[in-house]
Amino acid sequence: MVNPEAHITLAVDVMGGDKGPQEILSGLLKSTSFAPRDLKYLLFGPENELNSMLGDNSDWRSIPHEVRHAPEVVGMDEKPIAGIKNKKNSSMALALQALKDKEADAMLCCGNTGCLMAGGTIRLRTLEGVERPALCTIWPGRERYFTLLDAGANPHPKPFHIVQNAILGSNYARVALGLVRPKIGLLTIGTEEGKGNELIHEAHSMLKDIDGTIINYAGLIEGFQIFENVVDVVVCDGFVGNIVLKACESLSKLIGSFLDEELKRNAIRKTGALLSMGAFRSLKQRINPEQFGGAPLLGLNRNVIKAHGSSNRNHVSGAVKIALDLVRHDILGQMQDDIRGANELLRPVPLNH
Amino acid sequence: MVNPEAHITLAVDVMGGDKGPQEILSGLLKSTSFAPRDLKYLLFGPENELNSMLGDNSDWRSIPHEVRHAPEVVGMDEKPIAGIKNKKNSSMALALQALKDKEADAMLCCGNTGCLMAGGTIRLRTLEGVERPALCTIWPGRERYFTLLDAGANPHPKPFHIVQNAILGSNYARVALGLVRPKIGLLTIGTEEGKGNELIHEAHSMLKDIDGTIINYAGLIEGFQIFENVVDVVVCDGFVGNIVLKACESLSKLIGSFLDEELKRNAIRKTGALLSMGAFRSLKQRINPEQFGGAPLLGLNRNVIKAHGSSNRNHVSGAVKIALDLVRHDILGQMQDDIRGANELLRPVPLNH
Repeated sequence: MVNPEAHITLAVDVMGGDKGPQEILSGLLKSTSFAPRDLKYLLFGPENELNSMLGDNSDWRSIPHEVRHAPEVVGMDEKPIAGIKNKKNSSMALALQALKDKEADAMLCCGNTGCLMAGGTIRLRTLEGVERPALCTIWPGRERYFTLLDAGANPHPKPFHIVQNAILGSNYARVALGLVRPKIGLLTIGTEEGKGNELIHEAHSMLKDIDGTIINYAGLIEGFQIFENVVDVVVCDGFVGNIVLKACESLSKLIGSFLDEELKRNAIRKTGALLSMGAFRSLKQRINPEQFGGAPLLGLNRNVIKAHGSSNRNHVSGAVKIALDLVRHDILGQMQDDIRGANELLRPVPLNH
Repeated sequence: MVNPEAHITLAVDVMGGDKGPQEILSGLLKSTSFAPRDLKYLLFGPENELNSMLGDNSDWRSIPHEVRHAPEVVGMDEKPIAGIKNKKNSSMALALQALKDKEADAMLCCGNTGCLMAGGTIRLRTLEGVERPALCTIWPGRERYFTLLDAGANPHPKPFHIVQNAILGSNYARVALGLVRPKIGLLTIGTEEGKGNELIHEAHSMLKDIDGTIINYAGLIEGFQIFENVVDVVVCDGFVGNIVLKACESLSKLIGSFLDEELKRNAIRKTGALLSMGAFRSLKQRINPEQFGGAPLLGLNRNVIKAHGSSNRNHVSGAVKIALDLVRHDILGQMQDDIRGANELLRPVPLNH
């Protein structure tokens, strides 16, 4: 077990982001403002390329690091399992290996999500008693942030997986949002008992069984309540979660483009927009909060953080902060205890045994 | 069969909207600008109340109408089947009955969606060969409008229902959006073959079988493509569709509130906002298009149009326009032909026979 006060090592896949390794290095540099002095990065990428970049920039060189040669890169279009299996010397595969070998306490990656999820599941193991990992995202709500999972790791969950997601998400909300007893809601299409589908009915009943002991279950919620902070953790299957996440992301971009077009339509509107510039900047930051630049893949026995492919340096720095929080709060140990407790309540013999 | 050039009669549940019968009557009045002169409304609600309202307002009185006494109202919180079965004398139940008895060519309702869907399915019949109706919504995309169905009528569809939804939605996109060969997309979480779930795989394969003859199938699409006008008809199951619809509606409201708050934060921003006022008004209209104030429940053998509970007079007028379009284009006949054709291609013996 990592001692949270001792030094922390992060394995970073420097090659995955759309904006190139420079942006990721700038994000790590930015993180020095809050990172502990003895934090160390293992930088995975082609040795020559990375060394030449670091040689040219004394700021980047000042980041406590060690370059680890990884000659291959997993592309954004590669298929999940093939991508990770065919490229054993990729920055992603080698960073996962370092994490597995406990050379690092957490891994950060802006690359191909499908390959990272497949690689994480294949190379690392899940927590004892956990069957499938879940991708956990943080979203802006009306009054405060909330988490939603699963955002796409497991598109065909069993009710038991949904229950485990609730436990994993609850732990993450404690660490990332600083909540003591996060309220959990199960996403469905009508809050009357009987509505929804079989998966919802069974998961709802099991969630009620562990309410009050393992989690704080607030019941069923509908799509229109997601952003209203009715709950702190929105639990859903990976099929629904992925579609809602992507639809909402693309809707906010669309609204942004519409607003931009409308404000440029004539000189008066343009003048008004100049005066209100600060409002649009704050709006953008509220909708796309850079401090939560990473989404952990929860349920694995190591900390894996996925950042968006299009992450800028601020998002990367946000993802580093999340990685540090996960390690310092020993989220793995906490989740393991809760999963064990829930498995005892729900099943006479826990899974994976 | 209704002659589209002859007079059209619309049955209107005047009691369902959140803003009261006055707003609905104002919407009908507004519709006189585009409605044919011999359009007639059957107004369902408590006789005394409606007659007194109409007596007080000569504009409303000028709407060609006939008051039909309905002493009961289905409330917004009533459960789907109980609501419609227990209130046989409600404005909703009696309007459905008039539609069934062919006293009206279409029915318009701003009330309880669940009760309307249950009532429509129980009281009316489905088109020959159609198993389950679907709620079809129109959304604003980057360049143009598109349709999405099912928005919640059938949360546990079989693959065959998804295929029928594609056919129903294709017909609606022709009528409402004026498209000749609407492009159909099936919503999933990854466009590689093999991703998604069983429902997606089977529906995808059947959709390919009727591509080019009955529909114009463009294949699988992901959540981030919904608003990008990659396709004109987004097909999904009612569970996903309902959650995405409600999440997106509530996200646009949230962004609107955030924008409003930010613009009011100081005097300079307020001045800017005053100058750019027109931009915000246009933005609102682009995101919440009033001309598409109604969503038809497709697959029934009569035209039922659901308008939002919070509809204002412009939305009601938009819903009237949709009702007229459906009747004039004989969408029921068109859908029936396509469903028959698809059933012949996909199954040796059509359903419901």
